[in-house]
Amino acid sequence: MFEELQAIVGPERVTRDPGELYCYSFDSSYVRGHADYVVRPKSAEEVAEIVKVATKYNTPIVARGSASGLTGGSVPVKGGIVLDMTGMNRILELEVENLQAVIEPGIIHKELNNELIKHGFFFPPDPGSSDMCTVGGLIANGGSGMHSVKYGTVKDYVLGLEVVLPSGDIINTGCKAPKTSSGYDLTRLFIGSEGTLGIVTKARLRIHPLPETKSIMMATFGRIEDAGRAAVSVLSSGVIPAAMEIMDGSAIKAVKELDPTLEVPDVEAMLLFEVDGYRESVTREVGLICTICEQCGGTTRVAKNKNEEERLWAARRLVGVAITKLNPGKVRVYEAEDIGVPIKDVPFMLKKIQEIGRKHGMSLVTYGHIGDGNLHTGIAINPRDEAEWKRVHAVKDDIYDVVLSLGGTLPAEHGVGIIRADYMARAHGKGYEVMKSIKKAVDPQNIMNPGKMGM
Amino acid sequence: MFEELQAIVGPERVTRDPGELYCYSFDSSYVRGHADYVVRPKSAEEVAEIVKVATKYNTPIVARGSASGLTGGSVPVKGGIVLDMTGMNRILELEVENLQAVIEPGIIHKELNNELIKHGFFFPPDPGSSDMCTVGGLIANGGSGMHSVKYGTVKDYVLGLEVVLPSGDIINTGCKAPKTSSGYDLTRLFIGSEGTLGIVTKARLRIHPLPETKSIMMATFGRIEDAGRAAVSVLSSGVIPAAMEIMDGSAIKAVKELDPTLEVPDVEAMLLFEVDGYRESVTREVGLICTICEQCGGTTRVAKNKNEEERLWAARRLVGVAITKLNPGKVRVYEAEDIGVPIKDVPFMLKKIQEIGRKHGMSLVTYGHIGDGNLHTGIAINPRDEAEWKRVHAVKDDIYDVVLSLGGTLPAEHGVGIIRADYMARAHGKGYEVMKSIKKAVDPQNIMNPGKMGM
Repeated sequence: MFEELQAIVGPERVTRDPGELYCYSFDSSYVRGHADYVVRPKSAEEVAEIVKVATKYNTPIVARGSASGLTGGSVPVKGGIVLDMTGMNRILELEVENLQAVIEPGIIHKELNNELIKHGFFFPPDPGSSDMCTVGGLIANGGSGMHSVKYGTVKDYVLGLEVVLPSGDIINTGCKAPKTSSGYDLTRLFIGSEGTLGIVTKARLRIHPLPETKSIMMATFGRIEDAGRAAVSVLSSGVIPAAMEIMDGSAIKAVKELDPTLEVPDVEAMLLFEVDGYRESVTREVGLICTICEQCGGTTRVAKNKNEEERLWAARRLVGVAITKLNPGKVRVYEAEDIGVPIKDVPFMLKKIQEIGRKHGMSLVTYGHIGDGNLHTGIAINPRDEAEWKRVHAVKDDIYDVVLSLGGTLPAEHGVGIIRADYMARAHGKGYEVMKSIKKAVDPQNIMNPGKMGM
Repeated sequence: MFEELQAIVGPERVTRDPGELYCYSFDSSYVRGHADYVVRPKSAEEVAEIVKVATKYNTPIVARGSASGLTGGSVPVKGGIVLDMTGMNRILELEVENLQAVIEPGIIHKELNNELIKHGFFFPPDPGSSDMCTVGGLIANGGSGMHSVKYGTVKDYVLGLEVVLPSGDIINTGCKAPKTSSGYDLTRLFIGSEGTLGIVTKARLRIHPLPETKSIMMATFGRIEDAGRAAVSVLSSGVIPAAMEIMDGSAIKAVKELDPTLEVPDVEAMLLFEVDGYRESVTREVGLICTICEQCGGTTRVAKNKNEEERLWAARRLVGVAITKLNPGKVRVYEAEDIGVPIKDVPFMLKKIQEIGRKHGMSLVTYGHIGDGNLHTGIAINPRDEAEWKRVHAVKDDIYDVVLSLGGTLPAEHGVGIIRADYMARAHGKGYEVMKSIKKAVDPQNIMNPGKMGM
C-alpha cells in the first residue's frame, strides 16, 4: 500500500515514520489512535486515488485538519490512512458579487476571514478555535460559535460541497444559486457527518457583508432565573443580538479568583451582549436590551469605547483559562460539555449542572451561548487519576440525562466523534438506525472514519 | 386491504368511491394519477398503521396536503393509497419564549401565520400559495418564497420532525434546542424529500418576531443589466431587503396590457423592494437602496402610505394573472419555471429566456426573486395542443441547459416531482446515485411516493 500511496502523491507527501505518525495520533480530546500512513494530498483527484487504495485494501481513512476537535473525530482509532488536509488550503474563488467564496477544506478559519475582511465581508460561523481550526473541520463537525444566535451555524453557510466518496467518485452537491429544492439535501447531510460518508475537498460558502458597527454590553443579575428571563425577553422582543453569552455563579467566581481586578460584581449570573448592524439600530437595540434587563432585575453597563469593550469581554474570555489555572496540576477535559437545551430552560440547566457537580464532588464551571441554548461545562481533573475519570463519566451521564429529558441535544456544536458515540442511540432512538442505514448505503465497507458516531 | 384500512381509521375516513378518488388524481400541474384508496388519518399512530398495510401489500403510499404543488409531487402516479393529511392540522404547541411552535403537517400556511401574528410572531417561509398550501407540503418540497432573501427557506425554520418510516416506525429528528451537531442531519434530509423517504406527521418550527415596520419601493431601469447591477450592489452593501423582486420587459409589458392605468413606465426592467425592521434602519436602508439604484441609472419611487404600497406592488401581483388573461383560451402551464442562478447572472438569464422564447416562437413572461437568484417563467398554451406541448418541452430543455451551465438549480423552491424528474441525473451526476442509494436504504420496497424525483 505504501508504494501505491507514494505513486499517487510522490515520496515527499506520504510517511510511515513512527515519529511523524505519532503527531497524528491525537486531537484536542483524550482520545488516542495510531495511523499506519499519513498522506498529504494537494487535490481532489489525489484524494480520490488515495481513497481508492483505502477501499482496495479495506483500510480506514480519516481526514484531519488542525486536530483542534474535542471528540476524537479526526483520531485514527482503527488505524489506516490519515489524510492531512492542511495542504489544501486555498481560496479558489472569491465572488463577492454573488456573496460566495469557494475554498479548499484545509484553510484556517481565521485566515479565510482575514482575506474576506479586506473585501468588506466575513464568513459568520465563528468557532472559538478560529485561530487554528480548519474550515473543513468546522464543516465535518457541523460547528458554529458565539454568533450563531444571529448568524446561524455552518449549515447555513455552505451552498455546495465537492466530496470524494468511498468509491473514489467525486461528486458535487448543491449549486451556485442561493437556494435550491432539487433532490435530497446532500450538502447538509455531509455537513456534520464527521468524515464518515466521504471526504470534503472543496466547499462553496455563503459570505456576509461586515456590519457597520457593533456594541458590547453587560448585565448582571442576583438570580440566575432573572438572567434567563431577560435573555428570553430580549429574543422575543425582536432584538437579535449578534452574541448573547451567559456566565453562571461558578464561572463568575472562577474568573474573579483568577483576576481579582476584574470589574465583575459578585453576582449569580451575568449576560454579555454583542449587537451589530447599522449605527441607528445598534443604538436602538442597546437601549431595548438595557430596558429589558433592568425590568428583569439586572444592572447594565454599556461599553463606551474599544477599551471598555475589551474589559467587559475579558471575563468571558478568561473562563476557559480560569478552569485550569484555578486547579493547579489538573487539566481541562472536554467531557460533559457542549449541550443544547431550549432557551428558556437554560437557567434550570445551569442550576442542575451545579447540583450534579455537588453530587459527584466535582467543581464545574459553566458558561455558554444562551441565545441558542448552548452551554459548555468546564471540568479540570488529573487525567492520570482513574477515580477522577469515573466521576467525570458519572457527571456526564447525569448531565446528558437531564439534557435529553428536556428535548435538548448533545452535542450542539462540537460533534460526536468518539466521546459521545455511546449516547447516539439514546439521543436518536430509531432515527439512529436510519443514520446507520445511510452510512451503510454510502460506505458499505465502513472505511470512512470508522468508529466515529458509533458507525 | 380496504377492510384493513377501515379497521385503522373507521369506515368514515377511508374511501374507494370513484368520484372521491378522482378528486385526488391531480395537483396544480398537468400530471395525473389514480388512487386506489384515500385515507384521512388523524394521528401519527394511524399513519404508522396505514404505512404498515402499504408495506405489507407492497402498495405505493402518497401523502397529500392541499395539492397546490406544481410538479405532480402529490399525485398518485403509480396508484395505491393517498393519505389526505388535511385532517392533521393542529398547532400542538406554541412556545413563543423558545421561539418555536409544533404543528401537524396539514395546517394551512396562512392559518398558521394568522395564529402566530396574534402573539407578535410569524413563520417566515412564505410561498405564493400561502392561502391554500399546507406547511407539510412546503416541508416536503423544501419551499420558500419572496422573503427568502432575508429570512431563508423552510430548511432554516424546522428544528425537528416526527416521521413515519416505511417500516411503520415513528422517529423524531432534530431536537428542541435551537442548534445541534448530533449525527446526520435527518431533519434536512427529510425536508425536500417529497414524501419519498417517509411521512412527516409533526414539525417543530422556529418562529420569528414580527418586524416593527416595513417599507416598499420601486426602481425602474432602461436596461436589464442596470437592474442586475443595482440588485447585486444592494446586497453587497450590507442591506438585506426582506424581498427584492425583478420583472423584465416581458412581465412589465404583460401587466401594462392587462391594466393600462398601472403607473409603471415603459421600461426594460423593474425592481421592487420590501425592507423591514426597526423604523430607523428601514429609513436608512430605503435611502441606501435609492442611492444605489440611482447610481445604477434607475428611477426610484418610495411608497408613502399603505395605499401607495398597494399600487407599487400591484404590478408584481398582476403578473401571474396577466400570463393567462392576455392569452385568451390558453392556460398557464408550470413548466420551465422555478430556476435558480447565481445572483449576478440574473440579467443574463432573463435575456436568455427571451431569446429561447423567440427561438421557439413562444411568448415567455419572466419575473422572480432576484435576491436569491430565483426566476419564474410563465407560459400559457392550449393544453390540448400537442404541438404546443412540444414547444414547451423544447423551451424547458433550452432554459434548463443554460441554468445548469451557470451552475444553477432546477428547481429553486417548487420541488422536483414528476415534471423535473428527468433532469435529476444531469443536474446531480453521480450525486444522484447517492440520493438513490439513500432512498433504497430507507425505503427498500419503494412504496413511498414512487416515481417522484425519478425514484
